[in-house]
Amino acid sequence: MMLKENERIDDLQRNGYRIIQNRERFCFGMDAVLLSGFATAPPGGNVLDLGTGTGIIPILMAAKTEAAHLTGLEIQPESADMAARSVALNDLGSRVTIVTGDIKEADALFPLSAYDTITCNPPYMIGQHGLTNPESAKAIARHEVLCTLEDVCRVTARLLKPQGHFYMVHRPFRLAEIMVTMTQYKLEPKRMRLVYPFADAEPNMVLIEGTRGGRSGMTVEKPLIVFESKGVYTKEIVDVYGY
Amino acid sequence: MMLKENERIDDLQRNGYRIIQNRERFCFGMDAVLLSGFATAPPGGNVLDLGTGTGIIPILMAAKTEAAHLTGLEIQPESADMAARSVALNDLGSRVTIVTGDIKEADALFPLSAYDTITCNPPYMIGQHGLTNPESAKAIARHEVLCTLEDVCRVTARLLKPQGHFYMVHRPFRLAEIMVTMTQYKLEPKRMRLVYPFADAEPNMVLIEGTRGGRSGMTVEKPLIVFESKGVYTKEIVDVYGY
Repeated sequence: MMLKENERIDDLQRNGYRIIQNRERFCFGMDAVLLSGFATAPPGGNVLDLGTGTGIIPILMAAKTEAAHLTGLEIQPESADMAARSVALNDLGSRVTIVTGDIKEADALFPLSAYDTITCNPPYMIGQHGLTNPESAKAIARHEVLCTLEDVCRVTARLLKPQGHFYMVHRPFRLAEIMVTMTQYKLEPKRMRLVYPFADAEPNMVLIEGTRGGRSGMTVEKPLIVFESKGVYTKEIVDVYGY
Repeated sequence: MMLKENERIDDLQRNGYRIIQNRERFCFGMDAVLLSGFATAPPGGNVLDLGTGTGIIPILMAAKTEAAHLTGLEIQPESADMAARSVALNDLGSRVTIVTGDIKEADALFPLSAYDTITCNPPYMIGQHGLTNPESAKAIARHEVLCTLEDVCRVTARLLKPQGHFYMVHRPFRLAEIMVTMTQYKLEPKRMRLVYPFADAEPNMVLIEGTRGGRSGMTVEKPLIVFESKGVYTKEIVDVYGY
């Protein structure tokens, strides 16, 4: 396995899988791991990850589920190339495909109404405010430079099977907009979990599940607390990292 | 003070205030107390409570804030009469007014764009499904028999001053619909707190604040946990009941 400059291989502690990352670009965070823990896929199902970055989500979902096929879509060619090499590194070539392309055009790249599960860990920040280098890999991963929440919902609604499931991790400050946009595209919010760094802190992530064409009415789950005390993960976080 | 059949007087443990309740009708719950703790009103402000029932929210808000005037609107004449007697019992007649009338017509009953704060503890349940007695006082308080979430948001948007604040307590299963409806009526969700009975349980209430004409973007606050252990309130709940 050839590594490029600044790349390293990290152990995912799951099925023996490993992943290639580059500290100059964007390394996956707890949000991707928690989204993989929150999402499900039916045995034999067809899964798509929008904006896959290092490929972390399809690789973790390949470990966790019996999905038949998982596709990761990534617009940055260097990231897509790195993700594809991670897929090869884990011998997942028969189940996981990495495609280089634009989320905004995903409904032209992939078959419509064909996916059981779509996952997305999108850029959280609105616009390019405060960005000194909006074309950098990190800026594109974090800010809505190349795609917006609405783009994600619009193509997801077209690509999911009826009653298919959409899983997203995002920031709580955008929760109202998330609910409105998902509802607008008939991705009915059905399940939500807030991630609180500590039991007495504001949440810094929200995990949300929508069903294409689902009925109104949702479950808000118990809080997901990250740290029991400073530097000590709760049992649930240890479990999600180590299943 | 004259009490009617089945009525009793309860101590609110605040400013010496008391309230008349009737066990055959609807007694206020923790939701009303938590909403009063979550809501604010500016000194000298004008406050309206939609569907005031026993008058618990304007009475607690009168204790807690320096609002100049608080109005409680209640459609059931017997409840409105009981609330008015509680106002008199507490010598609050110069600050609190109880009006008998329909939320759906509140924008004809009261001056438009005139309120700093509007509070509402609405019926939570959709429609009349499963109701054996939809005209009972309890059914009207719990089910959307006489007014819906949309009615509440529609009249609130007309009655609030621009940038005025709306505070509501509701059930988490309707959270997506709440966000969508508030946004539709330009009551931008700005602050939310989930109430969890125990630290590891699903939330059973949501407290939400919207601003008329507010900008997109909200704060989700730390969890509000009710019980520390079985039968033992957390310090925060003791505080909200006892300030």
